Amino acid sequence: MAKKTPDNPDEMAQKLLAGDRRAAARMITLIENQSEKSSQFMKLVYPNTGKSMVIGLTGSGGSGKSSLINHLIRQYRDQGKRVGVVAVDPSSPFSGGALLGDRIRFQAHSMDDGVYIRSMGSRGYLGGLARSTNDVVRIMEAMGNDVVIVETLGAGQDEVDIIHVAQTCVLVLTPNMGDDIQAMKAGIMEIADIIVLNKADLDGAISCLHSLEATIQLGISRKEGSWTPPLIPTVASAAKIEDLQGINELVKAINDHQEYLHQSHAIDEVQTKRIEQELGLVFKDEVQKFIFKGLKGTGKKQQYIKAIFDGRTDPYSVVEEVLKTFLKEGSKVKETISSKQQI
Amino acid sequence: MAKKTPDNPDEMAQKLLAGDRRAAARMITLIENQSEKSSQFMKLVYPNTGKSMVIGLTGSGGSGKSSLINHLIRQYRDQGKRVGVVAVDPSSPFSGGALLGDRIRFQAHSMDDGVYIRSMGSRGYLGGLARSTNDVVRIMEAMGNDVVIVETLGAGQDEVDIIHVAQTCVLVLTPNMGDDIQAMKAGIMEIADIIVLNKADLDGAISCLHSLEATIQLGISRKEGSWTPPLIPTVASAAKIEDLQGINELVKAINDHQEYLHQSHAIDEVQTKRIEQELGLVFKDEVQKFIFKGLKGTGKKQQYIKAIFDGRTDPYSVVEEVLKTFLKEGSKVKETISSKQQI
Repeated sequence: MAKKTPDNPDEMAQKLLAGDRRAAARMITLIENQSEKSSQFMKLVYPNTGKSMVIGLTGSGGSGKSSLINHLIRQYRDQGKRVGVVAVDPSSPFSGGALLGDRIRFQAHSMDDGVYIRSMGSRGYLGGLARSTNDVVRIMEAMGNDVVIVETLGAGQDEVDIIHVAQTCVLVLTPNMGDDIQAMKAGIMEIADIIVLNKADLDGAISCLHSLEATIQLGISRKEGSWTPPLIPTVASAAKIEDLQGINELVKAINDHQEYLHQSHAIDEVQTKRIEQELGLVFKDEVQKFIFKGLKGTGKKQQYIKAIFDGRTDPYSVVEEVLKTFLKEGSKVKETISSKQQI
Repeated sequence: MAKKTPDNPDEMAQKLLAGDRRAAARMITLIENQSEKSSQFMKLVYPNTGKSMVIGLTGSGGSGKSSLINHLIRQYRDQGKRVGVVAVDPSSPFSGGALLGDRIRFQAHSMDDGVYIRSMGSRGYLGGLARSTNDVVRIMEAMGNDVVIVETLGAGQDEVDIIHVAQTCVLVLTPNMGDDIQAMKAGIMEIADIIVLNKADLDGAISCLHSLEATIQLGISRKEGSWTPPLIPTVASAAKIEDLQGINELVKAINDHQEYLHQSHAIDEVQTKRIEQELGLVFKDEVQKFIFKGLKGTGKKQQYIKAIFDGRTDPYSVVEEVLKTFLKEGSKVKETISSKQQI
């Protein structure tokens, strides 16, 4: 459509830093298409990131994450903050996966120039969803969004990788989760900074709160002196506004956690972990691109697959062979690094 | 514990091929630890794989996958078949994530020498869960299991990668899934060979069946002449055996699908796709290992992270730098390949 733009990196980066939504959309498309240009753009944009508040909301489909995010957007907008939302959950109304009524409700925000919502879809990021999401969050930061909210399903390794992008991770549970809550307790609970029990007006909410409280108490003793995840019952969807519950408490808890991070300097650790993870994600993607380029047009990939299928070799031997072609034997990163990076 | 075994590759592979459970456990541990030896073992074992029936069961936590698998194990055992189970869902009783009663029920099978159950845990496979699961399935095949069942949550890219290991993919839904069912319909439905509506005795099951039937009908018209996923209502958990439903129908549907795959030769396509995916997974892992080895002990990784944190560089430039050190510029896979592979 907008084919006439020649994607001049500097020009587009400048537009993005000025908050231009079309430049953002274009850059995100380049990232989604794994365009080689995307790294070029990201390099230009990167120095202007890392200053936003990045919040993660994680929970299974139907737990009400999107409704909660809807309230958060409204509250941050009332404070005059610009908000970006990255939806990774394919069932999210932000992703167009939910019922029509929901989608219309969320589209209201898309008329607001201070809100930028982007869905990561559910497909087409083979091996790269976490990296792409990370890049999109950085772009939203560079656009000048004070708050960036990432919505994920919280299951699977990719999702766990994505959660690490957030400084403050909100785990959204519901009383009717059944066995799912066991999985959440086992794994994801460890990374939750705030635990929300949404749909707290449902049957079973009180016993669920008690059980969660006990789990949190168990966690505290292990890491003394550090942040204790608050447990917040909420009702994010209600026919009448006065039936909503816990929204202000959630906003307060997020602010408290951010304050804790900055006062305790734990924020440095969080940002360092994010960089470490980011480095790994970019790295894996770039290596893959490099080698795909080398294989492209040689027809070798199909030949390898056929040879394995016929039982003439195995994937482990093929990979060994390919790596020999591409990797320098016994490579070590030199002790001196190019002056540009001044490490 | 069993430290005295020197992990002689040939010896261990031979033991495994004879069905030795301790050899299997040892090899799986090596895979979990990303030991360099694991590729060596896999090469020896690989030629003896690809003959088993590999079934995937996918669905959210609490949908009753494990109960269904429990019935499948029993039925295949009655037919004298050896069965392997790889549980990737951390909430699965096979993974120790469920309630005590469940766990005891499933441990009954672990007394049976014809059943080998292995859980992939929920952690420790950063970037490699799909590859590890694939390797463990191959090991279960090499052990001589006629049937290998893989249990996954079916959310996230990793999970979708894992599902591709299976020849026959069973999608397990329940009437009480709420919004989750939308996500399932949107994405995972495409890869389901058989659709099970478990807990079919719950309220809302009938309207759920109608809605699923309609979705399936939509799918059929698109891919004419090919397999039509049957929709099977089941009750996998009941106080009385006579209240169980649909188990025999599920076993029959799996057999029908396997027969279809072999008669239509679609099995070749399925196996080819599996190999292609496997190649990608092994490849990514091995490249990472190679470069980690090169970085190890140089302290460079921490220096890179600090330089990015301090704003002196960015992940994209660092990765470029590292790749220059490790990759041969402009590499192309040569047209001739070593004679061993005889492509």
